[in-house]
Amino acid sequence: MSSKPTVAHAIGCPAGIAPELTARMLADPDVTGAARLIVIGDARVLAKGAAAAGVGLDLDTVGAGDRLPAGDRPVLIDLRHLDPATIPVGALSKPSGDFAMANFRKALELCQSGVADAVTFSPFNKASMRLSHPSYEDEVVFMTEFLHFTGTASEFNILPGLWNARVTSHVPIAGVAALITRGNVLRSLRLTHDAMKAAGFAPPRIAVAGLNPHAGDGGNFGREEIDEIGPAIEDARKLGITCDGPFPSDTVFNRARKGEFDGVLTMYHDQGQIAMKTIGFDQGVTVLGGFPFPIATAAHGSAYDIAGKGIAHPGAMRNAMLIAGRMAAARRAAAA
Amino acid sequence: MSSKPTVAHAIGCPAGIAPELTARMLADPDVTGAARLIVIGDARVLAKGAAAAGVGLDLDTVGAGDRLPAGDRPVLIDLRHLDPATIPVGALSKPSGDFAMANFRKALELCQSGVADAVTFSPFNKASMRLSHPSYEDEVVFMTEFLHFTGTASEFNILPGLWNARVTSHVPIAGVAALITRGNVLRSLRLTHDAMKAAGFAPPRIAVAGLNPHAGDGGNFGREEIDEIGPAIEDARKLGITCDGPFPSDTVFNRARKGEFDGVLTMYHDQGQIAMKTIGFDQGVTVLGGFPFPIATAAHGSAYDIAGKGIAHPGAMRNAMLIAGRMAAARRAAAA
Repeated sequence: MSSKPTVAHAIGCPAGIAPELTARMLADPDVTGAARLIVIGDARVLAKGAAAAGVGLDLDTVGAGDRLPAGDRPVLIDLRHLDPATIPVGALSKPSGDFAMANFRKALELCQSGVADAVTFSPFNKASMRLSHPSYEDEVVFMTEFLHFTGTASEFNILPGLWNARVTSHVPIAGVAALITRGNVLRSLRLTHDAMKAAGFAPPRIAVAGLNPHAGDGGNFGREEIDEIGPAIEDARKLGITCDGPFPSDTVFNRARKGEFDGVLTMYHDQGQIAMKTIGFDQGVTVLGGFPFPIATAAHGSAYDIAGKGIAHPGAMRNAMLIAGRMAAARRAAAA
Repeated sequence: MSSKPTVAHAIGCPAGIAPELTARMLADPDVTGAARLIVIGDARVLAKGAAAAGVGLDLDTVGAGDRLPAGDRPVLIDLRHLDPATIPVGALSKPSGDFAMANFRKALELCQSGVADAVTFSPFNKASMRLSHPSYEDEVVFMTEFLHFTGTASEFNILPGLWNARVTSHVPIAGVAALITRGNVLRSLRLTHDAMKAAGFAPPRIAVAGLNPHAGDGGNFGREEIDEIGPAIEDARKLGITCDGPFPSDTVFNRARKGEFDGVLTMYHDQGQIAMKTIGFDQGVTVLGGFPFPIATAAHGSAYDIAGKGIAHPGAMRNAMLIAGRMAAARRAAAA
């Protein structure tokens, strides 16, 4: 093991901007200084990414079964599983999905076995993952199955000073309301509180969004605020969680940005995503919380439209790497 | 009738920031230059608003049955129906709702009778309106009933260079999906196209948001995009409407802001409101389109928390007045 906190970083979709973003991370001294990086992928894919990004590569390379070099230098585990010349750039293909899936699995294994303290990945493409692994729904569902995880996990979206969590995620709008129960909202509040507390908020101040327009407008546009969300907030307060609401979702983010809250718990995917991406799409970070180890990535997608052009903004990926490094360090400190 | 386009302006909720905002509008030479203002309310409420705002009042005053003075000067129709000392500031009450309802009805009548060309109002409080008029759901529903209107009306939210329309509005989330039909989406596309064209876009370029996370992700997170929204977009194109989509709702506003589209048609209330209020809450304007005359107001509410303090930002109300003035002028020109 390295003396530094160690982050296992899976190269994402090779048909998108993932290889060039990974190359940029390896060339960023703040990123390589925050943690030891173990990159998982194929040396040819990474070299092509470095060429697109216009950066040099300075790291050790080992094979899948090789022992990792001692020390803190970045290292590539070269799975030798994809020649990038054989896949279409900027388009879906099963080999691209196979590549990303294999890298992700290996990164998770490195954390399970204690070699790494956290996982990051450059952007996946869900549709290509699904060509490789048809039951692939999203990262949370996959990890829950892969890790035989029986706890509660959730996705957090993070901008500087503003966390966003949600009660439901990749659920059709038609199915959202039935899932907004007192129990589900309370579970999400606890998870959000725990994750933000672990990230250094003491205590986190959490705003809870309503489900309906105008937070139901006193029951006129829906009753979930009165029957489910409000009682869950009361339950959470009794547990010592600092939270308030339910607030209309179209103004709660403005209140949080002004400093009134550290995070917002939303009821469905786009309620938070619209606000977060409108505020600062390029800087958004996704953290998967609740699992035995932290996982972080950029909030944006694989950006097929600009793949290989070297123009992808690295800000979100960089923030994800820095957050993962801090969480890896905290986890290592807690275990020591 | 005045030689200028004429706007009937109803003072909104007297317990909120409406009186001070109306007073500020009367003191703004750009607003009073854009149209003749006929303010409807009570002289005592308006005087209290002017005192809160710290502005003087320079307008003529007539009673409810009096003939309006000739010329272009602003005029108050004093309904003498509320002493502001008798209502609680910053709290709901039936007399406040009665006051706002009476002003709104009178403003609509002035347009129906041809005295005014457009209606504006300073912020209402829906809950207090409902104490006065229990079936009061929102402005669109009330006006549809009051005007015996049989066409299709809709609310538009407007920031500089960015219009937002929606297929459903004050509907609980549990009921939204059932309303996202090919026919409803097409109707909204036509209404949006017509309203934006009337406001000067030639032609408007309309983006259509999906309903579900990731616009359904190819059917994985809902099928409305495939079964209803996509076909409606095709129908609209055959009618000559410039539109595209369905796009994921968490990035479509960023694309529009970059200039790719002039407006975004959203599927439900908060989908657009979250984006619009995150972008620029204080400057947002609401236009009700499809009625026989234009109606405009500030997108924000009655702001009970800062009522009477003179600190309410007048930007949104001012933009609403200027848009109403332009639409009134266009309507008068079209009728000439």
